[in-house]
Amino acid sequence: MKQFMGKDFLLDNEAAVELFEAANEMPIFDWHCHLSPKEIYENKQPSDIAWLMLGGDHYKWRAMRSFGIDEKYITGDASWHDKFVAFATMLAYAPGNPLYHWTHLELQRYFGIDTPLSAKTAEEIWEKANAQIKAGGFTPRELIAKSNVSCVFTTDDPADSLEYHVLLAKDESFKTKVIPAFRPDKALGIELPSFIPWLASLEERVGRKIESYAALEEALLERIEAFAKLGCKGSDHAFTYVPYAEASPDELEAIFQKGRLGDSFTTHELDAYRTALLRTLAKEYARRGWAMELHMGPMRNNNTLMFNKIGPDTGFDSIDDKEIAQPLSRFLDSLAKEELLPKTILFTLNPKDNYVLGTMLGNFQNSDAPGKIQFGSGWWFNDNLDGMREQMKALGNLSVLGKFVGMVTDSRSFLSYPRHEYFRRILCGLLGDMVDKGLYPNDMETLKQLVQDVSYNNAVKYFGIEGI
Amino acid sequence: MKQFMGKDFLLDNEAAVELFEAANEMPIFDWHCHLSPKEIYENKQPSDIAWLMLGGDHYKWRAMRSFGIDEKYITGDASWHDKFVAFATMLAYAPGNPLYHWTHLELQRYFGIDTPLSAKTAEEIWEKANAQIKAGGFTPRELIAKSNVSCVFTTDDPADSLEYHVLLAKDESFKTKVIPAFRPDKALGIELPSFIPWLASLEERVGRKIESYAALEEALLERIEAFAKLGCKGSDHAFTYVPYAEASPDELEAIFQKGRLGDSFTTHELDAYRTALLRTLAKEYARRGWAMELHMGPMRNNNTLMFNKIGPDTGFDSIDDKEIAQPLSRFLDSLAKEELLPKTILFTLNPKDNYVLGTMLGNFQNSDAPGKIQFGSGWWFNDNLDGMREQMKALGNLSVLGKFVGMVTDSRSFLSYPRHEYFRRILCGLLGDMVDKGLYPNDMETLKQLVQDVSYNNAVKYFGIEGI
Amino acid sequence: MKQFMGKDFLLDNEAAVELFEAANEMPIFDWHCHLSPKEIYENKQPSDIAWLMLGGDHYKWRAMRSFGIDEKYITGDASWHDKFVAFATMLAYAPGNPLYHWTHLELQRYFGIDTPLSAKTAEEIWEKANAQIKAGGFTPRELIAKSNVSCVFTTDDPADSLEYHVLLAKDESFKTKVIPAFRPDKALGIELPSFIPWLASLEERVGRKIESYAALEEALLERIEAFAKLGCKGSDHAFTYVPYAEASPDELEAIFQKGRLGDSFTTHELDAYRTALLRTLAKEYARRGWAMELHMGPMRNNNTLMFNKIGPDTGFDSIDDKEIAQPLSRFLDSLAKEELLPKTILFTLNPKDNYVLGTMLGNFQNSDAPGKIQFGSGWWFNDNLDGMREQMKALGNLSVLGKFVGMVTDSRSFLSYPRHEYFRRILCGLLGDMVDKGLYPNDMETLKQLVQDVSYNNAVKYFGIEGI
Repeated sequence: MKQFMGKDFLLDNEAAVELFEAANEMPIFDWHCHLSPKEIYENKQPSDIAWLMLGGDHYKWRAMRSFGIDEKYITGDASWHDKFVAFATMLAYAPGNPLYHWTHLELQRYFGIDTPLSAKTAEEIWEKANAQIKAGGFTPRELIAKSNVSCVFTTDDPADSLEYHVLLAKDESFKTKVIPAFRPDKALGIELPSFIPWLASLEERVGRKIESYAALEEALLERIEAFAKLGCKGSDHAFTYVPYAEASPDELEAIFQKGRLGDSFTTHELDAYRTALLRTLAKEYARRGWAMELHMGPMRNNNTLMFNKIGPDTGFDSIDDKEIAQPLSRFLDSLAKEELLPKTILFTLNPKDNYVLGTMLGNFQNSDAPGKIQFGSGWWFNDNLDGMREQMKALGNLSVLGKFVGMVTDSRSFLSYPRHEYFRRILCGLLGDMVDKGLYPNDMETLKQLVQDVSYNNAVKYFGIEGI
Repeated sequence: MKQFMGKDFLLDNEAAVELFEAANEMPIFDWHCHLSPKEIYENKQPSDIAWLMLGGDHYKWRAMRSFGIDEKYITGDASWHDKFVAFATMLAYAPGNPLYHWTHLELQRYFGIDTPLSAKTAEEIWEKANAQIKAGGFTPRELIAKSNVSCVFTTDDPADSLEYHVLLAKDESFKTKVIPAFRPDKALGIELPSFIPWLASLEERVGRKIESYAALEEALLERIEAFAKLGCKGSDHAFTYVPYAEASPDELEAIFQKGRLGDSFTTHELDAYRTALLRTLAKEYARRGWAMELHMGPMRNNNTLMFNKIGPDTGFDSIDDKEIAQPLSRFLDSLAKEELLPKTILFTLNPKDNYVLGTMLGNFQNSDAPGKIQFGSGWWFNDNLDGMREQMKALGNLSVLGKFVGMVTDSRSFLSYPRHEYFRRILCGLLGDMVDKGLYPNDMETLKQLVQDVSYNNAVKYFGIEGI
Repeated sequence: MKQFMGKDFLLDNEAAVELFEAANEMPIFDWHCHLSPKEIYENKQPSDIAWLMLGGDHYKWRAMRSFGIDEKYITGDASWHDKFVAFATMLAYAPGNPLYHWTHLELQRYFGIDTPLSAKTAEEIWEKANAQIKAGGFTPRELIAKSNVSCVFTTDDPADSLEYHVLLAKDESFKTKVIPAFRPDKALGIELPSFIPWLASLEERVGRKIESYAALEEALLERIEAFAKLGCKGSDHAFTYVPYAEASPDELEAIFQKGRLGDSFTTHELDAYRTALLRTLAKEYARRGWAMELHMGPMRNNNTLMFNKIGPDTGFDSIDDKEIAQPLSRFLDSLAKEELLPKTILFTLNPKDNYVLGTMLGNFQNSDAPGKIQFGSGWWFNDNLDGMREQMKALGNLSVLGKFVGMVTDSRSFLSYPRHEYFRRILCGLLGDMVDKGLYPNDMETLKQLVQDVSYNNAVKYFGIEGI
């Protein structure tokens, strides 16, 4: 019996252990997350461990609801102490949930606490951890520095002022690069209530009225330039499915005008508008050498009652199951035909799509970049032992694992960096198993290079980050 | 090499063995099966082992057809002896099929026969088993009692008289509770040939004409009350997909009238009718604290030739692959909005849906009940080692495994209870592996509680069964 | 640590080793491949190992593009030497890709080279292998003979002259049977640019004009007779999905006439045409006792730029994700109703369909043949360790593994036969594991028979090949 989450956690043979030593030397480049640049800049002291662990973390809220815990102890007005105890009580009954490992990695790595968290140990851990927090070292910047993070990409709206990025760039005391990523979801979501106010905020940002589809494209390209000046190297887009539909300029203009009035749309209109706008943006990314992330598969805000009570991103999203292959292929092809397909990273929330995406890559690879088209790591509901393994196995089977750009936290939490360690252990565990079973030669030189590349180097080169 | 299906079958380490000892202490609550209350009441002596094992079991018939066996030896007029030999001949060539383990669990647990069944051993086992049957102890009630079953839910039509449930409830000599479950599939299948005769039988049951959609709802609610009086705590519904479509009262009335005439329907009409009727029923379940089972994914009666020869439920069903996420979400949300979503158990026949269902749960969990929305155990074509493991792994990854309501046999056979043992061994094997690999602490107190809960206690509390 | 791809490669216990010895005794019957009968007949000397390994192999081209290698070194004008070095450089970074094992099986079995191929060893292996090739023994017929191949089915168009099959049949010096398989994809692809020229070539072959749908059917039936005269026992069809739509003779005639003019079609028209023509063909296959292979799921020629540069089958295909269950069931049922469903082998490219196909089988099995309806082995993007295992596990769970007709190379390469060894090792590994874990009895007599059947005997009987 192995020690619970001990030194060789997820490493079941010598080869795996040796590979992880190599992987673990690498810094972290977290090229997709939802950290707040404002919080990094302001660098405030956290109040307690529950605030650090549970604040804003809808993964944990969902699990607590599944245990039958009252909303009062989740997003309600119970004390942080009582929320922590409620969480601990649930946690012990959730073997197999990634929260179990994430939480204990956080306790081990940041607090040096090896005791498993449960109802029985909650009070003791609450005391120990809070004493440490009080003693200092747990501000956002301190946690980032402790985690050996060389660079993070935040997720930013085109209308955002980026003021905190400017401030952080000027602050020489903080070594980690904090770079914006361009996420124009609100521009593409023309049918949503957010579109009209968002358009107003973009108008304010660019300092002029946006009264035509052409003007919208122009404003977004202007913002891309602003993002680029702050070092931006990538964009990010969320879809249920990536659409492909063609439309004339007149049709696009008509759709845009409907959006300004808050009218409703046909599916074809939405597909056509999103296709056209995303194509324009993608070509600009290609010209600039940016990478384009495409996140597919979520079905959001399924619970209207709770949405009306506590809003979006509170744990009421799940996985959609649309057919995605054909429009995605046509969309990417439409860009490749013009030789303006940017580096592209395809993420799916539905594991049924793993083999569709894993083979889509190969349709558009070329020597523009090693692994130009990427299959993104197990994400959100797949960001667990099985999901990450299945993604790596699919990628290994269908492409060249050694050129994978690896892990991102996709997180709102400053405690989430051990998920990179988790990923690296899984990667090294998989490769170590191959060596141990005679499926790959015992060529540690090549494999150490490979795990260091996948853990860090590939992403640095892929995005073209310099000086880290 | 481990002994074939020995004491530690599926238990590969000490932790697994210890956990199974705890799980195995629990009685069985089989909250979804297709046993006949009439057969339980009448409690007849079986003729021989083939009749017991092969009678009505279309899983076995399918496997025999796949081996190339003539229908004569399957559902035809060959002797039970010859059918048994044909089955045994096939079985040895079906490693990996759950029938292999089910059959040997039946031989071991009910007959004390450890010899593997094959063409070579068929005669010997035929003799031994039949001698035991002749000696007695193999009637329905004796098999149920031997299997330590505290409670079963049968599957009953709203028009059913429930007379055998009444008789069984009065019979104090039989300790196992036999409770009806409400399965109004024929009410929802308005497009099928069964609708008009079924409606007549419901009219007879309630003693009045049902000439409007409103009258249909009223009659069904009256039957719910009749089921409730016999202790009913749950309903069950079979769908290719759970629909969501809205319709006015006038439209529903028009659809109902078409159904009375045997007219044909558009997909929208069927979806709208089923949505409305299921919503009415679901709200009543919610008011009464009943649980609602939704079984999705079968494609039935694929072979018209054989359907015309030997009817439904004879082994000619398979798995459909529809998109299910969006209408299911909207259906559940429509009830949650009114705060009348009952406890709900989602089953799928298509493993591609595991992650869709496993995340759908989280959208609607609340403190009404621990694990209020459940992901049902691997079912029918997934009721095998891989299918059950994948369901448990998905549930573990995506929710809180400790609140799972666990296994059901879904069976027509009185020999099927060892499938609960099979499930418990798989569950304990999974958890034992986690402990053995250091993925979960060696906290046997918590884990024993968890496996006893999943094996039995959770379901008893979830359905609210008292006095067992 | 096991030796890299040593004697017990993929065999992790004694039972597996013993079973593989039995499997490995069997010859190879490769009942689906894309070898050129002309190349077999002409039997030319290969120039070097790169030409042998990389020529025409789009699996390898895709992997090289994914590594970022310039097209010059893939399909361009670089030397075979430089292409080999480029391939070797990529290969070391592709752990998990089946190319890794295929390549080393080829080096080990045909060249006796055990050194792992990488940038470091490429020159040495280039020299050693080419010296052997120069010394002789590497012509198509020599490679086939060395590989213990008793029979191959090539893939042939109905309009093909089959002249090389005639020549090979007459050549008594070559012992391996080379038999055509009937693949009328161009007849079914009425909407493609290939249809009109193909129709002209069929007219030339049958020596008369084909000016009606009825005449097309007649010509195809005539070609089936010509194929049968050369020993043909099977057909093969590629689909995104198997359609089912009904149409009157007049409608079919109108669709055919549109095809002759190169008009465009509705989806319904295409589905109706393909349904009708495939039904006619399938009934003829049934009358003759042929097997019908249905390959589902590819999405071809996704990259228009590269298609225009280097044509089809160059590595720009991927996996589609359509719903396939309902039309496939109706299509098969329409034949079963008339008692003219031929033996049928269902292949899917999308692993999400494994359980749909694995249960579809059971709908149509009968005593016409053991395993009359087959689930084809892991194919193309699933032809790897995980894909083959998952297919076998699904088949084992859902049907009778012992009646499986097993592996095919589906390959254009004369070096691909070790993939049968790979398959047999995986099969024996799975079964050996079952014995080792006590999931199946240690009945080596039955299991050896089973692995020899699946490796060879089942397919020989299923297709009815005599004299091998």
